[in-house]
Amino acid sequence: MIILGIDPGFAIMGYGVIETDGVRHKLIQYGALTTEAKTPTPARLLSIYTGIRQVIDIYKPDQIAFEELFFSKNVTTGMMVSAARGAALVAAAQYTQELYEYTPMQIKQAVTGSGRADKQQVQAMVRVILGMRETPKPDDAADALAAAITHAHSMKAGALFKIV
Amino acid sequence: MIILGIDPGFAIMGYGVIETDGVRHKLIQYGALTTEAKTPTPARLLSIYTGIRQVIDIYKPDQIAFEELFFSKNVTTGMMVSAARGAALVAAAQYTQELYEYTPMQIKQAVTGSGRADKQQVQAMVRVILGMRETPKPDDAADALAAAITHAHSMKAGALFKIV
Repeated sequence: MIILGIDPGFAIMGYGVIETDGVRHKLIQYGALTTEAKTPTPARLLSIYTGIRQVIDIYKPDQIAFEELFFSKNVTTGMMVSAARGAALVAAAQYTQELYEYTPMQIKQAVTGSGRADKQQVQAMVRVILGMRETPKPDDAADALAAAITHAHSMKAGALFKIV
Repeated sequence: MIILGIDPGFAIMGYGVIETDGVRHKLIQYGALTTEAKTPTPARLLSIYTGIRQVIDIYKPDQIAFEELFFSKNVTTGMMVSAARGAALVAAAQYTQELYEYTPMQIKQAVTGSGRADKQQVQAMVRVILGMRETPKPDDAADALAAAITHAHSMKAGALFKIV
């Protein structure tokens, strides 16, 4: 089964694709969609939508796992990231209803065994789990892979978090 | 010139289409796209995206004017409305770069002459300006028409607010 993980962001949206049999996870691809601050907001959102559609078209994931937004204290930032998540969800919903979402704490717990792990520990474990030589960069791509791994673990545990 | 006004919302997104020569404004159509609370979020966002695309396909607006979000104190509501705005902006950006946005205060000022007008006064003036027999319903559609009227006034005044 192919799982696409997405870490939603407005300036940078991370994605990571893994193949899993429920026990072993294999890295397929990872990367980040970036938008420039000087580009108008509507064009940035369209670029995110188009980028996620392209990733989906290429890797044809069976299921898609999002990292849940940690709501910013900065209202404007929170609105922009929410809009970016909305653009990505439209692209995802055009392809499948198999859409899931995990909190940062669930992801830390699933990947490192501790809900209090820091970013570096999560990234190091993503590298180990997927047998990568180096820690995936940027952070957003590593977080997207962590969301995909979390979903694979949740499938095995029978505890899925569908977006409702 | 055809102007499409949009009042972004998650459960209800109002739209209103007017034709204007800069002085006189003529009502073309108005309505609201609604999504059900029991439908999963991704499907609701996709429905908003598809609905706005359909409205655009039918009326082929030259320019589109959004009412700016008044940020909710309820964080979850704010996130959902921002996502809905994101879905609508993706649909709009696929069609045109002529996208504008006005604050509730700018809209009240433009439509009634006072930035402190209440909702009923705005709706009553929308009815008068467009020569309608009855006040447009739902409120979201009236607000969308008010945004379109505001944009028409701003064009005449040479003070446009493009979304950046």
